[in-house]
Amino acid sequence: MKDVAVGIDIGATYTKFGLVDEKGNSIAADLISTTKHEEIDPFMKELHEAIQNLIKTIDSELNVIGVGVGAPNGNYYTGTIEYAPNLKWKGLVQFCEISKKYYDKPTILTNDANAAAIGEMVYGGAKNMKNFVEITLGTGLGSGIVVNGELVYGHDGFAGELGHVTYDYNGRTCGCGRKGCLETYASATGIKRTVFELLASSTAKSALRNYTFDDLTAAMISKEAEKDDPIAKEAFEFTGRVLGLKLADTIAHTSPEAIFLFGGLANAGDLIFEPTKRHMENHLMPIFKNKTQLLSSQLQAENAAVAGASALIWKERK
Amino acid sequence: MKDVAVGIDIGATYTKFGLVDEKGNSIAADLISTTKHEEIDPFMKELHEAIQNLIKTIDSELNVIGVGVGAPNGNYYTGTIEYAPNLKWKGLVQFCEISKKYYDKPTILTNDANAAAIGEMVYGGAKNMKNFVEITLGTGLGSGIVVNGELVYGHDGFAGELGHVTYDYNGRTCGCGRKGCLETYASATGIKRTVFELLASSTAKSALRNYTFDDLTAAMISKEAEKDDPIAKEAFEFTGRVLGLKLADTIAHTSPEAIFLFGGLANAGDLIFEPTKRHMENHLMPIFKNKTQLLSSQLQAENAAVAGASALIWKERK
Repeated sequence: MKDVAVGIDIGATYTKFGLVDEKGNSIAADLISTTKHEEIDPFMKELHEAIQNLIKTIDSELNVIGVGVGAPNGNYYTGTIEYAPNLKWKGLVQFCEISKKYYDKPTILTNDANAAAIGEMVYGGAKNMKNFVEITLGTGLGSGIVVNGELVYGHDGFAGELGHVTYDYNGRTCGCGRKGCLETYASATGIKRTVFELLASSTAKSALRNYTFDDLTAAMISKEAEKDDPIAKEAFEFTGRVLGLKLADTIAHTSPEAIFLFGGLANAGDLIFEPTKRHMENHLMPIFKNKTQLLSSQLQAENAAVAGASALIWKERK
Repeated sequence: MKDVAVGIDIGATYTKFGLVDEKGNSIAADLISTTKHEEIDPFMKELHEAIQNLIKTIDSELNVIGVGVGAPNGNYYTGTIEYAPNLKWKGLVQFCEISKKYYDKPTILTNDANAAAIGEMVYGGAKNMKNFVEITLGTGLGSGIVVNGELVYGHDGFAGELGHVTYDYNGRTCGCGRKGCLETYASATGIKRTVFELLASSTAKSALRNYTFDDLTAAMISKEAEKDDPIAKEAFEFTGRVLGLKLADTIAHTSPEAIFLFGGLANAGDLIFEPTKRHMENHLMPIFKNKTQLLSSQLQAENAAVAGASALIWKERK
């Protein structure tokens, strides 16, 4: 019997899930639609059946030791998904309570960025670290903060919302209803907004003038920056500046050994790492300079969120 | 035999020390000059003798269970005072190592704001809290962050430097060499700087026009604000705004149950609490609103730093 943890990553469109061993290897994975069911109960039933079907595809006998879940607005303390704006299920969703109907093993839930942080600690680049920060750069900016080897959940389960520290009190409108939040600058959407601001303010020639806002992606900006497009390059410089400045504040809070960048925009490599690190170091007080590493996540991008979620279970075993 | 912990608060001018019981009561206290000795060894000898003399003044028999020390740039992990700009002893001072010559009981050292946080947890208003932040508003701004019932020291022992998160990247020059640090606005010195800025920019009549920069104190500004002096009132409003905005960022990091304000400027009561709380709440993302209390420290102001330092020892007993 091989021990595996189920990892579930609930996204706005798809819910991905998989069977993950203690080294973070994916044994099998699949997905279902998140949007098909208006209510949580039929969704949970379909999800459970799909997981059972996945287990049947494996020849060897498996022992499921628990279910780890990453979900938007997931609350670790209560096991609930709370008022997630991008999900159909409204209000407080009792995910872990409902999960008990299907599993006699523990179900542990948190948000996706916290799950990535735990994944980094259990399988990834933070295996030997007690104090680090994981930053997920996707459509928005998520984060998980680890202190003394434990994830920081805060008194209510919602700590680590670095996407919503403020860069500019008169800045860009954020989906959270406020202005100038970090994620309106440092995220795949943020860098698109920066490109459009630069296209408006500058007269420089740029291949990026050929894209609509909806068609433009962070990967396209990255590709043009590698071809020395001036707007694309300036957009990365500005994004790195904003991220670096705010990471200096984060270091003044928890003084982490490393900050890991994870997700789409992090794949731009030096284009994002170099300016972020430069501006971060320039804005650190002397006592913190040249101490905190800025690193690429070591979680495999494919299924990383599922692996992260499964790590919630494996971490309890350590 | 009564158990007591020695608390030592090393300031730039005086080193205060005392014998503190497990409830935080001061049994006896005294002080020596910090500046008399250019070298650490003779200072430690004098300090030890003074503590022994203090113990002799007590009729009942005392059992010293350990020595807790709050010092500028004190490093909890290494027991050293590191490059403290306001102390005569330069470089790395091996405080805990030297202390072993005099005591066979543990000596534990950290910075003064961390000691205040531990004091709040052991004797004060945070007795039943696992997640809170202590802000000390003195000449500068210090802080101690508690997560999961433990102080956050970070990977290097220097976490919790909220005096040096940045409010304005083009703002006031800070003693740390950077610009716009929170403590250049939110501290006894910060509010003096704000008063002088307002006296320059406004034509309002104000009793504060009669003071030199060096003579002006936060207590005087507080006294004039209570008499409805427009400059003094505006200075508190601005100070509370800056502090509130940056505390909103801190809540996004660790989501504390409460934030305690401690020290000189905190004694201004509603003058500082009201605008700080209002601006903090206005700048929190919805998920954090009306959850984090802003409270007055429950440590007794007199000898609070000594009591805080002694709590480092009592905390180990819990």
